[in-house]
Amino acid sequence: MYTLAKPTTTFLDAVLTPGELKKLSCDELAHLAAEIRQEIVHALAKTGGHLASNLGVVEITIALHKVFETPRDHILWDVGHQAYVHKMLTGRRHRFDTLRQFKGLNGFVSPSESEHDAFVAGHSSTSISLAVGMALARDHFGEDRKVVAVIGDGGLTGGMALEAINHLGHIQKGVVIILNDNEMSISENLGGISQYMKRIKETFFYKDIKQKIDFIEEHLDEARLNPAVWQLIEMVKKEAKDRFDTPGIVFEKLGINYSGPIDGHDVKAVVQALEAVKDKTTPQLLHIITQKGKGYGPAEADSIKYHGVPAFALEPALTEKSEPVTAGKPKAKTYSDVFTEALIDVAAFEPDLVAITPATAEGSGLVKFSKVYPERFFDVAICEQHAVTMAAGMAKCGLKPVVSIYSTFLQRAMDQVIHDVAIMNLPVLFGIDRGGLVEDGETHQGVYDISYLRAIPNFTVLAPRDAVELRNMVFTAVKEGAGPVAIRFPRDKAVSASELEQLKERLGPVKSFSPVPCCKWEVLEPGDGKNIILAYGSMVEIARRALPAMAGEYGVSPMLVYARSAKPMDENLLKDLLGRSQARIVTLEEGVMAGGFGAGVMEFASQLRFQDPCRRLADVSVIALPDQFIEHGARPILLDMVGLSEAALTRKLGPFFTAC
Amino acid sequence: MYTLAKPTTTFLDAVLTPGELKKLSCDELAHLAAEIRQEIVHALAKTGGHLASNLGVVEITIALHKVFETPRDHILWDVGHQAYVHKMLTGRRHRFDTLRQFKGLNGFVSPSESEHDAFVAGHSSTSISLAVGMALARDHFGEDRKVVAVIGDGGLTGGMALEAINHLGHIQKGVVIILNDNEMSISENLGGISQYMKRIKETFFYKDIKQKIDFIEEHLDEARLNPAVWQLIEMVKKEAKDRFDTPGIVFEKLGINYSGPIDGHDVKAVVQALEAVKDKTTPQLLHIITQKGKGYGPAEADSIKYHGVPAFALEPALTEKSEPVTAGKPKAKTYSDVFTEALIDVAAFEPDLVAITPATAEGSGLVKFSKVYPERFFDVAICEQHAVTMAAGMAKCGLKPVVSIYSTFLQRAMDQVIHDVAIMNLPVLFGIDRGGLVEDGETHQGVYDISYLRAIPNFTVLAPRDAVELRNMVFTAVKEGAGPVAIRFPRDKAVSASELEQLKERLGPVKSFSPVPCCKWEVLEPGDGKNIILAYGSMVEIARRALPAMAGEYGVSPMLVYARSAKPMDENLLKDLLGRSQARIVTLEEGVMAGGFGAGVMEFASQLRFQDPCRRLADVSVIALPDQFIEHGARPILLDMVGLSEAALTRKLGPFFTAC
Repeated sequence: MYTLAKPTTTFLDAVLTPGELKKLSCDELAHLAAEIRQEIVHALAKTGGHLASNLGVVEITIALHKVFETPRDHILWDVGHQAYVHKMLTGRRHRFDTLRQFKGLNGFVSPSESEHDAFVAGHSSTSISLAVGMALARDHFGEDRKVVAVIGDGGLTGGMALEAINHLGHIQKGVVIILNDNEMSISENLGGISQYMKRIKETFFYKDIKQKIDFIEEHLDEARLNPAVWQLIEMVKKEAKDRFDTPGIVFEKLGINYSGPIDGHDVKAVVQALEAVKDKTTPQLLHIITQKGKGYGPAEADSIKYHGVPAFALEPALTEKSEPVTAGKPKAKTYSDVFTEALIDVAAFEPDLVAITPATAEGSGLVKFSKVYPERFFDVAICEQHAVTMAAGMAKCGLKPVVSIYSTFLQRAMDQVIHDVAIMNLPVLFGIDRGGLVEDGETHQGVYDISYLRAIPNFTVLAPRDAVELRNMVFTAVKEGAGPVAIRFPRDKAVSASELEQLKERLGPVKSFSPVPCCKWEVLEPGDGKNIILAYGSMVEIARRALPAMAGEYGVSPMLVYARSAKPMDENLLKDLLGRSQARIVTLEEGVMAGGFGAGVMEFASQLRFQDPCRRLADVSVIALPDQFIEHGARPILLDMVGLSEAALTRKLGPFFTAC
Repeated sequence: MYTLAKPTTTFLDAVLTPGELKKLSCDELAHLAAEIRQEIVHALAKTGGHLASNLGVVEITIALHKVFETPRDHILWDVGHQAYVHKMLTGRRHRFDTLRQFKGLNGFVSPSESEHDAFVAGHSSTSISLAVGMALARDHFGEDRKVVAVIGDGGLTGGMALEAINHLGHIQKGVVIILNDNEMSISENLGGISQYMKRIKETFFYKDIKQKIDFIEEHLDEARLNPAVWQLIEMVKKEAKDRFDTPGIVFEKLGINYSGPIDGHDVKAVVQALEAVKDKTTPQLLHIITQKGKGYGPAEADSIKYHGVPAFALEPALTEKSEPVTAGKPKAKTYSDVFTEALIDVAAFEPDLVAITPATAEGSGLVKFSKVYPERFFDVAICEQHAVTMAAGMAKCGLKPVVSIYSTFLQRAMDQVIHDVAIMNLPVLFGIDRGGLVEDGETHQGVYDISYLRAIPNFTVLAPRDAVELRNMVFTAVKEGAGPVAIRFPRDKAVSASELEQLKERLGPVKSFSPVPCCKWEVLEPGDGKNIILAYGSMVEIARRALPAMAGEYGVSPMLVYARSAKPMDENLLKDLLGRSQARIVTLEEGVMAGGFGAGVMEFASQLRFQDPCRRLADVSVIALPDQFIEHGARPILLDMVGLSEAALTRKLGPFFTAC
């Protein structure tokens, strides 16, 4: 079915706008679906992207555009990574070869890209809240538009989606919720709700009870009953029907009208179901069953692996065993790998260590940990808030919880970090993955963590310069366990990963650990001692690589300091450096400037002034991310764009250090 | 029943420990409950505090201590303001006259106060997540303790509580959830879940269907049916019973065993219900109906007014009409009052303005708005996340949403502020109440907002110096509506409130508005131009009052600048001031130092250096909150403790400005 040659796309070629799609019959739409599926596999084989989830929503997307009218009607794609088909059908098909590339098509929905994208999405579980807001606005203005939220069963585990359902059930506004149920979120989907959904599909109690009552009736017919009994039987039947003729009783009880479940790969069925709920003025939930990876063998068989894929080999002989092309080469270890392996090795001698993830076990590599220590691994679904507070409860009772979480998602648990972890000063370790710039773009940039964690009392905020440091930081944080510790690392190959491998081979997994002096910084290059670079985390290596060019092109040899901790500061070293009144200190970090590492250095300097008001201190200048949302694109491109690449730093610091 | 004389407390005097309580019979416990109720009213008449909610949980608390064994067993009080009875019964009765005073009893649960307080609480909806974490730890260690979460129907609307229930339903650990259902959270409780709970109490469908089936059976008896029909009828009855003989079907479907509802003011019934679930190793939800304010007429009649009370008059003749004693005097207007009145007045000519609150309509004064514009007022229950994203959806569709929220609660929606409001650059106005220090203590300090909002692109972050400014900022933000704006104000009487009243009287509510140049700062006192104070928001007035003492005691007359915005900076003015190379600039703010207003000033200075590396700039020193959690106590006491009072500033700045 899949070939390297571009597939034929007769119907797809004819559908340049949603308006043209509307003219097709349901049979033709089914053909269109098949073509789209081929085109997606073909396109993603080159660019990479979210394969399985998009193959799952082909028919739903077609049906939505058949029944609804964007941009007048608002379709809100929860998370937004399953909108490829939507993008193809709304004028962006010709740009698919640029998907997720710098300046190319965004991998998520993006109103700046098309008026058919009603709102930005990238994080989970926001769509119903948005829909509620939009429906209230519509009714306020007396408009006619429909508001549709498309949310997965994974997104439904997120607390804010449940808050929104609860509110919608109360206000009874006309919103259509499409529950795209593929029985998994990014990780395996967990929780009572998903099990409940599963039961919905397995047994329809009403059908049972109805059959039985029908049977009773049949026999009663022979039994010449008095009319009162007949009436009662009718009432029981009606009540049973009214109250239980729905597998979605939980939703019904919350005030949301449930219909379904229906087959999400039957275009006609989906179109009919949408037509049935479209004009309702009360909340509607349409439960649609889909299969992730539908139509592409390998992705059907392993939709987790094919959730997000790099460019992959596309061959006619492609089978379930096929691997993304990168799998052939020896894979460079990422910081995520190093983190997970460190956890596994520490867990061997720390029996009370447990690992927690909010549905990102695959992305963070934690799935390996779960294989080795299944009973000490907790995937709580897309519930960052619950994950953090649960960890606090565990720590209070003597466990050593490690929360593995992406920087961008930890934003959702900031209150829990403050209120439940930090106030109690509990030893919870946060492994903050994807800290810094990521290719996914503005919704996913992990650039606020340094700032907001530094503001919280009791926190230690670390960032390793390389793989060895990351491993030892994990070890040290778990061993010392004095209070909350955050270790942030970028989404990238780990610096010095091969040295780490050699170390582990030589000394074994346990002896290769050595404690890190977490709040001491390290002078890596003494330099001239007057021009001073304080680099945090990922910036250490980039700055180190810039030194030769600074020396060669500008004749300057700055001191380079590896700042392990953004909090606490290495006060002794800083006092020394700030005391060099003629020195210029420059701080580097891969995070927003406001309140970041550099701000911390300046805050410290400002306090020294109160101690010794007449003393002149060295000037501090901060290099960090600009105050804007950063688009998508490969990390090296983005780093250069914002001035944090080796070359950009040389260009900026050479003249600065040599100016006077 | 209530007198100024201390009530007799025969039983309460005998119960010094939970162990002694266990010896009492259920009848004796009922007497104890009556005594506790009197003592609470009596104590709170002097100190103020959360009256109604504590009167509601007297019997529940007694029963919990009768059946469970703290501190071995963990009782987690959600929100924590309803733990007064618990405190009385765990050795803290003699300290009740210090309730909520500086260095006195905390108004919330606090493990630093007693080993019987299993965890800190202050924010809503955390208890089930904590319980899940503690139960997992218990089972990991093979311990025998029970874990009990006591949560209100209000707390249950919070997303993270729903996340936790979902997870608990999946992992099936032994946790007892006490649902204390008084049909309201702080505000009137909203949402599908609460309506569902109400229906549970109104109709038990099963009883209905059972009666009808029984009736059918009776008549069928005459009808000589064949045995197969009989069998089927029995099956229908059994299935109906199994599946629907529970008003808690929603919980059951999510994997939580439901029992109840039971009368929460019948000690014996509560004790028996607790005994029944105590030793279960699966999740249990016990639904208990209570009445807020139970036993105290005025509080029963108006539990919202008596949610949190100041000290009040306690008279034998106290009736439903009694008011807290403060009500007699002309009440000084708070910033909350000024904010709400401004909203009401702007709403008169801005028909698209809507106000949103996450269950804090009373505390924030927004209830007045809801009376004038009920159709433009949205209380979404304790759902900060949903509130913010719903507002984003509204703004996208042309409404002008204003989110009124406490600083400490906005932490829970930080991700939504970034992901749904700021990325889209939507004109949502955040009225951030209780920004700065509050008497409630560490869980409620509103001290992070300046830092984390300043880090977010597209945001304007304002703080008024007085009532007139606050009013005009609201007006300006709504009129201009260019992007997200935060206006933070303290929990206190508003400076210049009477001037504002005169202004409104003279010009009328509409003409009294005038636009504010939001990003221009104002030089209030030119001073010597060398010693410069940049004060943000609430610190302006405090600094202004400190000027005479600085002049008198130290002979220094600093310039005083009112910094309206922490973001953006007033770049022109700052360039001028920073350019005075011999000047000393001191920044003042009522927030954490890390990343706050002062950090912003230094970040700006550090960027000027890159433009002109050889220029010497004025030094900047930051005065802000220390890096620690701040305890409870009256705001003036706390401000002085942290060095932000008039006197403390004089003592610090006088010597600093005159040092050399």
